[in-house]
Amino acid sequence: MNSTTLKKILDALASGDIDVCQAQNQLSHLAMEDIDYAHIDHHRSLRKGFPEVIFGESKSVEQITGIMERMISQEQVVLVTRVDAEKASQVLQRFPEADYNETARMIRLQKQELAKTGQGVILVISAGTSDIPAAMEASLTADAMGNEVQTLFDVGVAGIHRLFAHKEQIEQARVLIVAAGMEGALPSVVAGMVSRPVIAVPTSVGYGVSLGGITALLGMLNSCSSNVAVVNIDNGFGAGYIASSINRI
Amino acid sequence: MNSTTLKKILDALASGDIDVCQAQNQLSHLAMEDIDYAHIDHHRSLRKGFPEVIFGESKSVEQITGIMERMISQEQVVLVTRVDAEKASQVLQRFPEADYNETARMIRLQKQELAKTGQGVILVISAGTSDIPAAMEASLTADAMGNEVQTLFDVGVAGIHRLFAHKEQIEQARVLIVAAGMEGALPSVVAGMVSRPVIAVPTSVGYGVSLGGITALLGMLNSCSSNVAVVNIDNGFGAGYIASSINRI
Amino acid sequence: MNSTTLKKILDALASGDIDVCQAQNQLSHLAMEDIDYAHIDHHRSLRKGFPEVIFGESKSVEQITGIMERMISQEQVVLVTRVDAEKASQVLQRFPEADYNETARMIRLQKQELAKTGQGVILVISAGTSDIPAAMEASLTADAMGNEVQTLFDVGVAGIHRLFAHKEQIEQARVLIVAAGMEGALPSVVAGMVSRPVIAVPTSVGYGVSLGGITALLGMLNSCSSNVAVVNIDNGFGAGYIASSINRI
Amino acid sequence: MNSTTLKKILDALASGDIDVCQAQNQLSHLAMEDIDYAHIDHHRSLRKGFPEVIFGESKSVEQITGIMERMISQEQVVLVTRVDAEKASQVLQRFPEADYNETARMIRLQKQELAKTGQGVILVISAGTSDIPAAMEASLTADAMGNEVQTLFDVGVAGIHRLFAHKEQIEQARVLIVAAGMEGALPSVVAGMVSRPVIAVPTSVGYGVSLGGITALLGMLNSCSSNVAVVNIDNGFGAGYIASSINRI
Amino acid sequence: MNSTTLKKILDALASGDIDVCQAQNQLSHLAMEDIDYAHIDHHRSLRKGFPEVIFGESKSVEQITGIMERMISQEQVVLVTRVDAEKASQVLQRFPEADYNETARMIRLQKQELAKTGQGVILVISAGTSDIPAAMEASLTADAMGNEVQTLFDVGVAGIHRLFAHKEQIEQARVLIVAAGMEGALPSVVAGMVSRPVIAVPTSVGYGVSLGGITALLGMLNSCSSNVAVVNIDNGFGAGYIASSINRI
Amino acid sequence: MNSTTLKKILDALASGDIDVCQAQNQLSHLAMEDIDYAHIDHHRSLRKGFPEVIFGESKSVEQITGIMERMISQEQVVLVTRVDAEKASQVLQRFPEADYNETARMIRLQKQELAKTGQGVILVISAGTSDIPAAMEASLTADAMGNEVQTLFDVGVAGIHRLFAHKEQIEQARVLIVAAGMEGALPSVVAGMVSRPVIAVPTSVGYGVSLGGITALLGMLNSCSSNVAVVNIDNGFGAGYIASSINRI
Amino acid sequence: MNSTTLKKILDALASGDIDVCQAQNQLSHLAMEDIDYAHIDHHRSLRKGFPEVIFGESKSVEQITGIMERMISQEQVVLVTRVDAEKASQVLQRFPEADYNETARMIRLQKQELAKTGQGVILVISAGTSDIPAAMEASLTADAMGNEVQTLFDVGVAGIHRLFAHKEQIEQARVLIVAAGMEGALPSVVAGMVSRPVIAVPTSVGYGVSLGGITALLGMLNSCSSNVAVVNIDNGFGAGYIASSINRI
Amino acid sequence: MNSTTLKKILDALASGDIDVCQAQNQLSHLAMEDIDYAHIDHHRSLRKGFPEVIFGESKSVEQITGIMERMISQEQVVLVTRVDAEKASQVLQRFPEADYNETARMIRLQKQELAKTGQGVILVISAGTSDIPAAMEASLTADAMGNEVQTLFDVGVAGIHRLFAHKEQIEQARVLIVAAGMEGALPSVVAGMVSRPVIAVPTSVGYGVSLGGITALLGMLNSCSSNVAVVNIDNGFGAGYIASSINRI
Repeated sequence: MNSTTLKKILDALASGDIDVCQAQNQLSHLAMEDIDYAHIDHHRSLRKGFPEVIFGESKSVEQITGIMERMISQEQVVLVTRVDAEKASQVLQRFPEADYNETARMIRLQKQELAKTGQGVILVISAGTSDIPAAMEASLTADAMGNEVQTLFDVGVAGIHRLFAHKEQIEQARVLIVAAGMEGALPSVVAGMVSRPVIAVPTSVGYGVSLGGITALLGMLNSCSSNVAVVNIDNGFGAGYIASSINRI
Repeated sequence: MNSTTLKKILDALASGDIDVCQAQNQLSHLAMEDIDYAHIDHHRSLRKGFPEVIFGESKSVEQITGIMERMISQEQVVLVTRVDAEKASQVLQRFPEADYNETARMIRLQKQELAKTGQGVILVISAGTSDIPAAMEASLTADAMGNEVQTLFDVGVAGIHRLFAHKEQIEQARVLIVAAGMEGALPSVVAGMVSRPVIAVPTSVGYGVSLGGITALLGMLNSCSSNVAVVNIDNGFGAGYIASSINRI
Repeated sequence: MNSTTLKKILDALASGDIDVCQAQNQLSHLAMEDIDYAHIDHHRSLRKGFPEVIFGESKSVEQITGIMERMISQEQVVLVTRVDAEKASQVLQRFPEADYNETARMIRLQKQELAKTGQGVILVISAGTSDIPAAMEASLTADAMGNEVQTLFDVGVAGIHRLFAHKEQIEQARVLIVAAGMEGALPSVVAGMVSRPVIAVPTSVGYGVSLGGITALLGMLNSCSSNVAVVNIDNGFGAGYIASSINRI
Repeated sequence: MNSTTLKKILDALASGDIDVCQAQNQLSHLAMEDIDYAHIDHHRSLRKGFPEVIFGESKSVEQITGIMERMISQEQVVLVTRVDAEKASQVLQRFPEADYNETARMIRLQKQELAKTGQGVILVISAGTSDIPAAMEASLTADAMGNEVQTLFDVGVAGIHRLFAHKEQIEQARVLIVAAGMEGALPSVVAGMVSRPVIAVPTSVGYGVSLGGITALLGMLNSCSSNVAVVNIDNGFGAGYIASSINRI
Repeated sequence: MNSTTLKKILDALASGDIDVCQAQNQLSHLAMEDIDYAHIDHHRSLRKGFPEVIFGESKSVEQITGIMERMISQEQVVLVTRVDAEKASQVLQRFPEADYNETARMIRLQKQELAKTGQGVILVISAGTSDIPAAMEASLTADAMGNEVQTLFDVGVAGIHRLFAHKEQIEQARVLIVAAGMEGALPSVVAGMVSRPVIAVPTSVGYGVSLGGITALLGMLNSCSSNVAVVNIDNGFGAGYIASSINRI
Repeated sequence: MNSTTLKKILDALASGDIDVCQAQNQLSHLAMEDIDYAHIDHHRSLRKGFPEVIFGESKSVEQITGIMERMISQEQVVLVTRVDAEKASQVLQRFPEADYNETARMIRLQKQELAKTGQGVILVISAGTSDIPAAMEASLTADAMGNEVQTLFDVGVAGIHRLFAHKEQIEQARVLIVAAGMEGALPSVVAGMVSRPVIAVPTSVGYGVSLGGITALLGMLNSCSSNVAVVNIDNGFGAGYIASSINRI
Repeated sequence: MNSTTLKKILDALASGDIDVCQAQNQLSHLAMEDIDYAHIDHHRSLRKGFPEVIFGESKSVEQITGIMERMISQEQVVLVTRVDAEKASQVLQRFPEADYNETARMIRLQKQELAKTGQGVILVISAGTSDIPAAMEASLTADAMGNEVQTLFDVGVAGIHRLFAHKEQIEQARVLIVAAGMEGALPSVVAGMVSRPVIAVPTSVGYGVSLGGITALLGMLNSCSSNVAVVNIDNGFGAGYIASSINRI
Repeated sequence: MNSTTLKKILDALASGDIDVCQAQNQLSHLAMEDIDYAHIDHHRSLRKGFPEVIFGESKSVEQITGIMERMISQEQVVLVTRVDAEKASQVLQRFPEADYNETARMIRLQKQELAKTGQGVILVISAGTSDIPAAMEASLTADAMGNEVQTLFDVGVAGIHRLFAHKEQIEQARVLIVAAGMEGALPSVVAGMVSRPVIAVPTSVGYGVSLGGITALLGMLNSCSSNVAVVNIDNGFGAGYIASSINRI
């Protein structure tokens, strides 16, 4: 409709009903609606290849399926994050063709096989078994956004030799995501091994002064290795998303 | 210049050089510049009566006088906040007609007497003597923005009877600003006496677990009186500004 | 009764039973009761048009209905905040004429249609779907206090163009309430669009270092826009209350 | 037994079995046991009139009744704090003569009427209804420790005139305990009315940045009135205890 | 003057110039001033024997001497806290009869020898040498308020045997003040030795996670001994004040 | 297998298939695997006598039993920490020969009696009854790691004479572990009694500003006694582990 | 030398002085040195094109020039960060060919023009004038690491139209760095405009509850836009470094 | 003198002047003084080999030299920590035979060569150059307490290969001290390489959210390696002290 309004002004100018000055004046007031229009366009182009994502935590089954229905009519893929197993089973009754990954707590609904648009491998590493949910969320997000994803789980500081055993794989990745809780030292160690960008995901794993992930977060922000940048605690989705935006360059 | 670009497109349309569709297309891409233009316009209208303000703390004398020069050519009044006495004396050598208030650490430069655009009285109250700088900053800001301002200093909880002695004045104010440090209880007490909006300014006055104003801030956010809203610690300027925006309604 | 006591002293003085000195002495000791009386009077006048509000969270059904009974005999409207659906259904068995809004978790009981005493529109904006409960609490509070209220939900930074699409509505509001969680940036953006006062409500929506709303709160207190003041986390009621006190000016 | 050991050494010295030097040497090594003995004695004298108290929160019914049994054989009164209703009903099956106060969550078991050893009245004030559990814990503790206790509940800042209506009662108390949550301003106001010591109890009542009582605690520690000292959040027992120790002077 | 106003109304009533109803009406409006009056009276009686105190930290020499002049005309004693040596020497040029204690950073000006109004001994204990300033501030405050004060410095946990060596002195005190930094354990230990009230003063002494006194404060609030109440960090003055209010009972 | 690869290169060199330069080059690329190998070797030697430990909190029964099966085939002893009673009973159905300690929430599975490799006694002390779980976890860990362990429970500051009664036992321990919540003062007191190393375990016992153990942790880090080092809150396992590493020296 | 040792073993094996088994054994112990060697090599390759960087803040002029001398003999470029003007002028006396940027507080010493190895433009944006130092540090770092860098300063939320005016430039950047203090909202807004990765740099600019940059940091970690990752407060160098590692892909 | 008092009682008993009962009674009251005596004795024996230490930070030159004089008459060695260069030069004018280490900010005064009482090597490791002061304080403390000390500085995560190059030295140490700032990951890595106890010293080195060492501290408390215990930030002295107490076992 904004474009209708715009067209109406331009028609009026073209037909001489208003003069340039009047048109200019009317258009100044329209600017926002113009952006609105432009933004939608731009937004749509952005979404090409980038899945629209529903944060499922505080939404009911009805809300989730409602949004999924509207989205899947226009999109190739729909992701829902933070869905527990019970909610998920109800959503899948409505969309039996969707997949649910219980570890990552993610639902994925797609119309057809996604094209790989990322140019290299995104390697997702987790320090411990308890960090796997965040790592898996990152992994599935990057996968759904058209990247080749590899994973390397449970290679934390307590078994650092296992990490070194995968040195080649680590050095060949184009972007790395490292999820770790407790002291959060793993991203620094990994970043010291490569020249590639490392996205660090602090997890809420731990007890006592792990402070629900804040200690890991602080450690990562103070990393001695400079090729590390950090996302919010347990934000596997965000890590997968920005890693994709890097890999697509 | 953006308006020039806009005019150029409209001229082209009016003269038939481009058709409505082409114009619509070109304007879609111009949207941002249009906003820029619109914003400037809107911004200017906003500034009518609202003084433009320079945050002086981290600026050199040269930077301050430079910005003042550019601004005073277009504005009725220019305010500079957080200027210490030494810097101020140098600024005043360049602008001898400006006023400096050492308590509020503010410089004010104006071309002519400001019209009163606020509709009632803004009453600025401080709990202790040490809270006066923040209160004075609020007071001078509101004054420069065209309000009748009254002040009531040093009427904190330790001498609460002095506060009650000014009950009538307090009840007649249209908007109230209350600055307090330490436990920050005064805004609640004042708000309990009136039905008007109270803007609370926590100050960094105190020691130990006053935590540089955080205790006062937390106390004010937990006020039992519901007609209280809060600004940042020592942010007298912000309190004066929003009080003005309320008084101008 | 205090006024009875007062009258008794004055009667005794008028009838010559006590002299001025004795009266003065007795009245000195009565001062507090006098205030009590005055306060009650003043308080009652305050409450005209302003609904008395019951904080329901830690109260039992019996406590809530008990207070409601005493209040509705004297008041036009009674509000109860923070009532979950189960408690509410029991309260409504006692007051079938009351309304319950599950999103805002508020009960409203009124004798007759409330007069509109606010002079303009209060616009309540929420950043995301999860911020709607706080926004709705603000909205219903302002409505019950006699204001025309409009709402604009789910127009956060992720879909900022939707916000701009409502530019006119935003600019015409007399007071604005903006509820947002996570980074809490929306109030700044809205405040940058208008010269009216904006009351910011941080919400506890988010995860990780959203810290239960503290990040949003800190962000709002540091707003670059100066026409913003802040209330406690999730305090929709307080926002609605102070917005009403502003709109009534 | 320690005293037996001591006597044995002294006997040996008196009988010439050991000389002074040997006795001195042996006694040096006994020092700690001597203290132990002294401490026990001193400890017992301390407990005369002061009830021994069991912190019930993390103890099982069996643990609580076990300790109660051992204690009541030697003491006039036994108090158990932080006991929920369910646990309490089981404890009372074993001690039917005990009393349980559900609001204060305290069990009290006593052999006979306690003598009043406190010299004046301890007045316990609560700001809101939700602060009553902490206030009641303080009140029952002081009562069990032999004090005349009066209470004044729900006289917070929102209804400050009700506080002033009790001015005389407040001024006549020998020690005051004030429990308040949220902003925690009430102890300051009360302390401003009297010259007596005021023990402030921050409560965990509130939401958002009440931070589980930390805001109230910080506010009380920053009180403008100097006759205020503070105990831990929700520590009604501690407040009642120290108030008793003051009242007994 | 308020009392004049009151008398005027009562005179008018006694003389029949106004009737009871008018008098009642006028007095309702006077209530606050009545309180004002009452407060001043009460305040004055409070101050008898309790020195008025000037917080010198953020005040200039001129401000301090100005307030001292006004006060000494009506009071027996004037205290100024938090005055550094340089400021103090200038103040003493104006009041050569005043005393300055550099450790406590206090100035004391008194007209004549103060009467002892406290009934027992207040014992002030410091854990380390660095805690002496806070302890001295408490000591001088209690002394100026008419108490017999004894001190016991440098008897912290590292030399706990020195504490026990003074067991008798400790047990004979009526009120105890204990200042300690770092881990702040001393008040608990002292409180375990006596049945008297202990006022704990956390000091900002320490480094690393002593957090400027917050660790000591938290430790004291969590004291296992229940006859402990706490004041703000470094608040020796407050400790001396409330100890005096206890000792005067 | 890495050792196979290493041997293959060395064989090739010995047989002249490759020259020294080629061998050197290949070995450079093998370095990590060499470390891997070395680490495994070293790791294995480390594990002799040191039980491998499973953190059971976030693991399912299946995960726990799976790991136990793999481990017990190679190890003398397997420990599982943080297992609740329900999970434990299921694990014990699979390993009936295992022991479960409900207080410490630990499962221990061992093939034969463990040799004592520690050289002295490790003494584990708890301040209160509620600190026993952490103390017991430390105790069982040290025991499983081949140490003679003694325990001394419930000897906190409130009953400090009981502590002194065990002076001899305390002085004879080679390493001490002290678990305490609330103010966490006990490790300082114990450390003041001995010249041996004291490992302090803050526990999450307490309420209000015990802050889930942070107050105890901060207090212990600020200990006046210098022979104290600290582990994470409730980390009894870590304390038992490092005490063993000290005792084994 | 490690490689010498390695060669010695291999020589011994080749010459039959030791057998394969002995060689294998000796090499197991050498593993670490091998890595050392490998690491150095790898490290050197890493450094090609990536400038070695000296953190100058806590180093003396002598230390800085000493390290620079050793480095410049082997490197094309040497960077020193966090050097104040006074220190810098002394360093430049020793290296007159070096450049010093006072805003960024960086010294740069290079032998010859650096090749551009980054593949696109890195755009560095600052919110306010006070954020320029951090932004400039990022900019100079990226420049020294071989990237084309563009800057856009002072385009914060208060002048958001200026940001939109540069829409095209923003959309064409390959990687973006956004430095902002106070509420830190700018990175979210920028990230909402592009699909490229955005590195957010919180700055310590602000007062009150800006908390030295923590508020900005928290806001950025909670960004609604998912293509944002964050570095430490004021860490312009780190932002420039990781942006380079992304741009080099 | 206490021993005199004790002897007097025993003499009186031995000579029959008092009987056993009287002696027992008198000794009960003496207990504390006995402890005092015992403590001094015990204390002295403790100090043999353990240097008495003066915390110099808040002490004047006069205070430091005064305490040194009293101590050196009885002790073999006197240490003073936290002394800046200026103060130190004045102290050394009084004690020209003392040594001052400017990096560690320690003065050491000793009468003769100290005997080595520690049984193995204490290895002190620092992550970066800026961590050397804390590491040096630990090193000199351990040295003065009679240990063989080795140091390994500047081997942090950024140059982790240098750490591995010293693998043998690391594995041969009996106790290890690791000082690190920023993210504080080094102690975990070192502890993963050895079975010996590691004392971690967080340092205040860093900026932004290194939070003056709190991030390093939190990271160390959350170490994945269990043979790590932690001391206060920058507490090199404490680390050296407890390491000595371990090495002396």
